[in-house]
Amino acid sequence: MKAAFDGTTVRCGQDGLTLYDQAGFGRKEGNGLKLAPQEALYLLQRGKIKIDDYDFDKLLAVFAEQPNIVRSYFVYRDLRERGYAVQTGPHDFRVFKRGQRPGKGESLYFIRVISERDPIQFSSIIKEVNTAHNMRKQYVLATVDDENELTYYEIKLQTPPHLEPFPIFPSINGTIVGKSTIIHVPPKSQFEEAWFGSRLDDNRLLLSPFETIYLAGIGDLSLKIDMRIISVEDLIQRAQETDTEFLHKLKVYEDLRKRGYIPKTGYKFGHHFRVYSGQKPHSEMLVHAIEENAEMPMITISRSVRLAHSVKKKMLFGCVYSTGIQYIEFARIKL
Amino acid sequence: MKAAFDGTTVRCGQDGLTLYDQAGFGRKEGNGLKLAPQEALYLLQRGKIKIDDYDFDKLLAVFAEQPNIVRSYFVYRDLRERGYAVQTGPHDFRVFKRGQRPGKGESLYFIRVISERDPIQFSSIIKEVNTAHNMRKQYVLATVDDENELTYYEIKLQTPPHLEPFPIFPSINGTIVGKSTIIHVPPKSQFEEAWFGSRLDDNRLLLSPFETIYLAGIGDLSLKIDMRIISVEDLIQRAQETDTEFLHKLKVYEDLRKRGYIPKTGYKFGHHFRVYSGQKPHSEMLVHAIEENAEMPMITISRSVRLAHSVKKKMLFGCVYSTGIQYIEFARIKL
Repeated sequence: MKAAFDGTTVRCGQDGLTLYDQAGFGRKEGNGLKLAPQEALYLLQRGKIKIDDYDFDKLLAVFAEQPNIVRSYFVYRDLRERGYAVQTGPHDFRVFKRGQRPGKGESLYFIRVISERDPIQFSSIIKEVNTAHNMRKQYVLATVDDENELTYYEIKLQTPPHLEPFPIFPSINGTIVGKSTIIHVPPKSQFEEAWFGSRLDDNRLLLSPFETIYLAGIGDLSLKIDMRIISVEDLIQRAQETDTEFLHKLKVYEDLRKRGYIPKTGYKFGHHFRVYSGQKPHSEMLVHAIEENAEMPMITISRSVRLAHSVKKKMLFGCVYSTGIQYIEFARIKL
Repeated sequence: MKAAFDGTTVRCGQDGLTLYDQAGFGRKEGNGLKLAPQEALYLLQRGKIKIDDYDFDKLLAVFAEQPNIVRSYFVYRDLRERGYAVQTGPHDFRVFKRGQRPGKGESLYFIRVISERDPIQFSSIIKEVNTAHNMRKQYVLATVDDENELTYYEIKLQTPPHLEPFPIFPSINGTIVGKSTIIHVPPKSQFEEAWFGSRLDDNRLLLSPFETIYLAGIGDLSLKIDMRIISVEDLIQRAQETDTEFLHKLKVYEDLRKRGYIPKTGYKFGHHFRVYSGQKPHSEMLVHAIEENAEMPMITISRSVRLAHSVKKKMLFGCVYSTGIQYIEFARIKL
């Protein structure tokens, strides 16, 4: 089939409408069909259309001067080869359910195409995912690496459901040592039952900074340094001096504890918390606390997701807003 | 045994010398023994010494006002419990071979204690590791997380040995499309035999930016955009515009290729390169390129090491100096 390229857009004549009707290519325009760059490249490479003076390399080289077209072409091609009908827009593709197509059926995924180096702005991704969910679509990130290999991630907003609350703890005194707190309780105390602290010896349990502040905040723990009573606010102040991330990590810690989850240090997995639900032997999530305006290169998120999945956990980022925590999950998927 | 604390240092009298002679505690001073804070705390918690007016909590609280003492105490205690004799200094501990001790035997490890949040300055770690290797000691990082759990990493400087060189490639023309390059070669070409490129279709092979520049640099590939010939320098310039890390990644790529290794994108593992030695089916290393003055929080390195080990690869950072690349390996070990 003949098509024409005016230096900007590829168009087919009336016979091109079969491409739309049969497989959802292009958008109708007057009596013909207007093709997006990715569609034109795909049809040209497949030999479905011919354009005077332009072979595939030449058309690709022209479109390649527009940002992101090459990577977005590889995603388009991959989706088509997997048997999906794809339309461009709103960001960057709408993918139809298998066997369905524009005009005949509905779309399943909104797909955003990014390169491995692109920064992910959490607040703007959260907005886009929200919009997609409101339209009952799944939100998928298609990432393209330097060798044009593709990886797909489904992004979901999560609200961990409330679990059974923890029992009330007995009042107790603690001694601050550095960033930790020593409390004197025998083994198998109520604190350890709720997975607080690590045992120092038969008399002493050591509470982490988050555990200390959480327990002091709910009023069961009073703290002293060198015989002097110290307030929770002072303790937060001290912790912040050596840890700029402390406050948003604390907010996520408190939120998870209030929901009945058990966050413990995630250091061995390179993230802020590994999180247990109930008394299960293995943690089920890695949670990394981030600020409202945080951004992170996609390759860093890829590392987190790969690690979390390799230890069979979900990868969540806890985005700290003034109104509360928005959890956002990145999960690698196969389309 | 009685000991005295003057507000700064714990000392034992002459009877304390048995602690040194039998188990390598302290340093001789006059007729007595001077204990480092970690040693005093350990002996006090074990009930081996007694200090008037100070129980363990109180002494720990005093020492805790010095930076790093609490975490370093936990490392000291762990090493002692594993049966090692340990001396303080030069950074932070010298650990003796099992069954040996100060004055009777030699040390095996130099141990540096850091917290999960401490930044790792690669150039200074490289210097310390060099010093340790010159003294035939292993260099070990002991990291302490917020719950005082310990993880040990052995740090090694690596120089990947030269492998068989790649064959000479035929001269060829390429067309730049975006950041990649299309060359026209049939399947199973010499380029693919040396693991260059990814196949676009039966005629076309797509080279990544690193592959393009490497092949153009060794003179086998001439490049054009839109019929215009482009130089390697122009190409590097273009790539840097959208990727601030490009230049040091390129240097590491070129160094590995010159040594006969095959670096491919490491995106799926969240690092710059996965590296194959020879034609093995699985890559053996993840390599992340960093600048000479790079620093990274330890928790980030922990994530990299955990991920690399979970896929049975070594984790190397390629530190780009003006004189060449210094590879540095982080490997989690059990002492």
